[in-house]
Amino acid sequence: MSETTTKNMQGRVSYHDSVEEMLKRIRDDGLSSVFSRWDPQEKIRCSFCLQGLSCQLCTQGPCRINEKTGADKGVCGIGPDAMAMRSLLMRNIMGAATYGHHAYEAFRTLKATGEGKTPFKITDTDKLKWFCETVGINVNQETNQLAIQLADFLDQEMKVTPDQQSKMVEVFAPKKRIPIWKNLNLYPSGVQHEVENSIASCLTNVDGDYVSLAKKALRLGLSTIYTAQIGLEMTQDILFGTPKPHEVTVDLGIMDPDYVNIVFNGHQPWIGVATLLKAKQPEYQEMAKKAGAKGLRIVGSIETGQELLQRFEVDDVFVGLMGNWLAIEPFLATGTVDAFVMEENCSPPAIDQYAEKYQVSLVSVSTIIGVPGTEHEMPYYPAKADEMAEKCIQIGIENFKKRHGIIKPMVPKHTTTAIAGFSTEAVLSAIGNDLNVLVDVIAKGQIKGVVALANCATLRNGPHDWNTVNITKELIKGDILVVAGGCGNHGLEVAGLCNLDAIELAGEGLQGVCKALNIPPVLSFGTCTDTGRISMLVTALANHLNVDIPDLPIAVTAPEWMEQKATIDGLFAVAYGAYTHLSPTPFVTGAPKLVKLLTEDVEGLTGGKVALGDDPVQAAKDIKAHILMKRKQMGLKE
Amino acid sequence: MSETTTKNMQGRVSYHDSVEEMLKRIRDDGLSSVFSRWDPQEKIRCSFCLQGLSCQLCTQGPCRINEKTGADKGVCGIGPDAMAMRSLLMRNIMGAATYGHHAYEAFRTLKATGEGKTPFKITDTDKLKWFCETVGINVNQETNQLAIQLADFLDQEMKVTPDQQSKMVEVFAPKKRIPIWKNLNLYPSGVQHEVENSIASCLTNVDGDYVSLAKKALRLGLSTIYTAQIGLEMTQDILFGTPKPHEVTVDLGIMDPDYVNIVFNGHQPWIGVATLLKAKQPEYQEMAKKAGAKGLRIVGSIETGQELLQRFEVDDVFVGLMGNWLAIEPFLATGTVDAFVMEENCSPPAIDQYAEKYQVSLVSVSTIIGVPGTEHEMPYYPAKADEMAEKCIQIGIENFKKRHGIIKPMVPKHTTTAIAGFSTEAVLSAIGNDLNVLVDVIAKGQIKGVVALANCATLRNGPHDWNTVNITKELIKGDILVVAGGCGNHGLEVAGLCNLDAIELAGEGLQGVCKALNIPPVLSFGTCTDTGRISMLVTALANHLNVDIPDLPIAVTAPEWMEQKATIDGLFAVAYGAYTHLSPTPFVTGAPKLVKLLTEDVEGLTGGKVALGDDPVQAAKDIKAHILMKRKQMGLKE
Repeated sequence: MSETTTKNMQGRVSYHDSVEEMLKRIRDDGLSSVFSRWDPQEKIRCSFCLQGLSCQLCTQGPCRINEKTGADKGVCGIGPDAMAMRSLLMRNIMGAATYGHHAYEAFRTLKATGEGKTPFKITDTDKLKWFCETVGINVNQETNQLAIQLADFLDQEMKVTPDQQSKMVEVFAPKKRIPIWKNLNLYPSGVQHEVENSIASCLTNVDGDYVSLAKKALRLGLSTIYTAQIGLEMTQDILFGTPKPHEVTVDLGIMDPDYVNIVFNGHQPWIGVATLLKAKQPEYQEMAKKAGAKGLRIVGSIETGQELLQRFEVDDVFVGLMGNWLAIEPFLATGTVDAFVMEENCSPPAIDQYAEKYQVSLVSVSTIIGVPGTEHEMPYYPAKADEMAEKCIQIGIENFKKRHGIIKPMVPKHTTTAIAGFSTEAVLSAIGNDLNVLVDVIAKGQIKGVVALANCATLRNGPHDWNTVNITKELIKGDILVVAGGCGNHGLEVAGLCNLDAIELAGEGLQGVCKALNIPPVLSFGTCTDTGRISMLVTALANHLNVDIPDLPIAVTAPEWMEQKATIDGLFAVAYGAYTHLSPTPFVTGAPKLVKLLTEDVEGLTGGKVALGDDPVQAAKDIKAHILMKRKQMGLKE
Repeated sequence: MSETTTKNMQGRVSYHDSVEEMLKRIRDDGLSSVFSRWDPQEKIRCSFCLQGLSCQLCTQGPCRINEKTGADKGVCGIGPDAMAMRSLLMRNIMGAATYGHHAYEAFRTLKATGEGKTPFKITDTDKLKWFCETVGINVNQETNQLAIQLADFLDQEMKVTPDQQSKMVEVFAPKKRIPIWKNLNLYPSGVQHEVENSIASCLTNVDGDYVSLAKKALRLGLSTIYTAQIGLEMTQDILFGTPKPHEVTVDLGIMDPDYVNIVFNGHQPWIGVATLLKAKQPEYQEMAKKAGAKGLRIVGSIETGQELLQRFEVDDVFVGLMGNWLAIEPFLATGTVDAFVMEENCSPPAIDQYAEKYQVSLVSVSTIIGVPGTEHEMPYYPAKADEMAEKCIQIGIENFKKRHGIIKPMVPKHTTTAIAGFSTEAVLSAIGNDLNVLVDVIAKGQIKGVVALANCATLRNGPHDWNTVNITKELIKGDILVVAGGCGNHGLEVAGLCNLDAIELAGEGLQGVCKALNIPPVLSFGTCTDTGRISMLVTALANHLNVDIPDLPIAVTAPEWMEQKATIDGLFAVAYGAYTHLSPTPFVTGAPKLVKLLTEDVEGLTGGKVALGDDPVQAAKDIKAHILMKRKQMGLKE
């Protein structure tokens, strides 16, 4: 990490003052946290695991690779490159299948909504029609019928096998990419098929070839984005509205202990939306007031919070977003949360101690959740969404009676504003639906290029969100527009980089564009699930210019990736043809041929590649150099 | 391990003389093997991994649990029990998805056969009709139409979600189990759904509760057997014939270097059968003869070999089975193999050195295979099966020209006979289709009970197949009938325990039954995929007696399990209600609550449990004690 960066982080573990303040309370109260559990682990890290040279799959193992001791292969015979890549592919599979699960729930919800079984309605009928038309569904039908047909179509797309052809890939892939993917055998089937095929490949003694495994990872990445992610994001738009930019409030200071506070955490907004719709009705506010509260509030936590933030105004019922996943434990320690309702990652496993100490009711609304201390478990059925929302409110009110006046609240006085809710449509609308406006500012060099930042938050390379914030500052200073999704995006929102004040931090050219369009230099595109949405904007640009993705002055960065969904987003980006900066370095450094493949050779195949580097200043420099090279190749001035 | 067992294994690494002989050649030729790679790994084993106390999922890790150093949880907060169970569930998922993949290929092949697109035909029309009738398909249709409908039905069963109900589970589950599984929330959906749900649960910060994770593993086990395995085995019977007992030849001595030898290795017999059908035609024998060979031979390797063995007579074209997976490298070293055609595990990753040294053409006929050194890659399409078989023969003949007279063959002079091809139908037929005959010999105590042995082979607890053979000898000596599947079964076949001579090794009661019915004391039920088939026999017995599975004097043993499919078979057995002996001990010993759950508490829920123990003599004693206790509870004399 560069000196300029490190000198500012002395003694800190988070970029955010609110988190730092809460961690004092957590320490004083004798609880452990992600932050405190870091040090004991740091002392006993396995260097084999860090390098990808450890395998625990079978009973001939566990094996480790150490050429010096003669252990140059696993007992089965697998070498270091395949061992590391297989392990990475398994993580990719976990990410792909989790997106698949989210998509399954989305399509199931859309179908049940069309059938009139949910509290939801088709909010964006234009998008529904556009989507149906795009994929070849006859739009001369009643809206709910269209929704049902689209849901069936999308569900089937995830099941496409090599005997069929995915329509979603055909329709949404950049035109110039398709023949390249076909030639490389990267043209994907549906994500559920690719997941099964990839897992069967990872079994002991099946695929022991790092190149073959890497190709499966790239194909799985494409499959994930095109047959799960784009469909599910469009479905959420159809159900809950396409995001439009608007000002929102973020950080831990949004909490007021005198309200019944129901928090939705994870990635899947079904019950969050259902509860918010209810909470806006006076009768539910009355129920909360009868329990002694000032009212009933809905609070957004991490990605589910962002899904709400993208689509709903912040008001006295929906009060905004608390931050990203590393802020969850600090957030629960405020003693203001009544129900913490979970449906996907990140729902950390040791929050039972917080639930007990600060009187929080832990609630799961998905079969995948298994958090110790969870009092209420409700498997999700779309037809039960209304009933489940009702139950969440009851749980929140009951908890309020046990919390309020008993648990001493501590709310850091920090809030900031962000402009959330960018989308391809919103960007196009900001430029008068004329992509030439964007092309023009890029061509002139006011904007040197565009970087998609999509990732998590991790303590691996420094304090919480430190690298995400710093790389972003460097990029916008260099006139590079940042389009952000995921926990990293929430970190940027909380850090104040997604509001109009941040324009001052941008370079001169970007400043001019931001001021003219009245947009911040970092466009909040939502969650990590919006990787697909971000790609749609880039694809539109490439198709408009009739160039291929690797030709564009763009890049991807995941400066604090943490979990397995980030790995599949990253592999997608490489297959998509993007320069893809990943930090921390994936666990592959013990596999020299694999490192060469991912960071060098793959560029000759897909045009994309993995770029490494844990210093945000240097990483931003590298990204900028890549963008300037692409500008030069396009004949644009640097 | 007991002294009586260990004293016999001095200096040996395999139970089989043929393998021991070949390992000398391998050493002399300077190649590494699974056997030689064991020692260097044994020196650097990770004790954390062995105990299940290591996690490499996210960039906050890798983490290890060590309470003494204060690292009592992972950075995320996960504890030792959930960490170990999540890791085990991931292995279960790999097994389940691989069975799902096999089933997908089976159903796809059945459908294409019904459509007249493959070289196969519907061989067992009675079984097709019985199966269709059982699952509610109208049987008044033309055979090929029935096949197509059944294929569609079975494919759909793997996709059943919680919004639907699996017909396969309803029809094939033991009647008394169904309410129990429903009460425990173990009643499964389709395997593809359960796999996706389980993976999404294993993501960082989703399911951190060892009980919740263990229940998912049990449900996944049931889902795998009922919605994938039973259907795929029945499909293979429909396509290639229901196994019937017949004498076959096994061990490395089956090889003759003067023939073109094409070997099929893995689990999925499509191209193996297609090639065998061709090889029986004189024109292909002629082609081989023209190349200077005595003819063209098909050789069965591991599970694919067993699938052929179960259904085809051993003759001058199909010469039998070489053994199980640990015999693959020794087998290739004979210098007699022309084409080694792979479609699933175990296709070990370092056989490229053998291919080069002994002139073997490595061929893959599945997208999942990725073995370094593979010269010919053909993704499987049922409609291309004929063409692929043709190609395999060409490859074999071309290789013969480069091998014969150039590579010095070395064939151990060891063959033995086995009776392969038992099935539920075959057992029923042997007892005149009257289950009371079986009940009667059990009630009288001639057979004390039945043990299903289903597993792999591993060097973990001693030489290759040593534990499998020894536990089996102990069991049959104690009048326990052994029903075997998987690589363990092939080990028993090669060891001579599946032929009529082995009757002499059985106890007096079992001897009498075997002689009366003319069956060996170990019934070869096929592959690990036949776990479902074995369960069908037990289910029939339970339904016939109107008792539940845990009431029966039965048990399951996996005395040398190695890979991930074995783990899901094991979890199935526990949910099914069986006493399930697993050796080696799974990587869970650092998780005390989990060990207690799996080895004790689960018995109060499903009636099944995991039994541990790496000494085959003691393990057999424990199994016998369990069986005698169950006999007592049933009111039978011990």
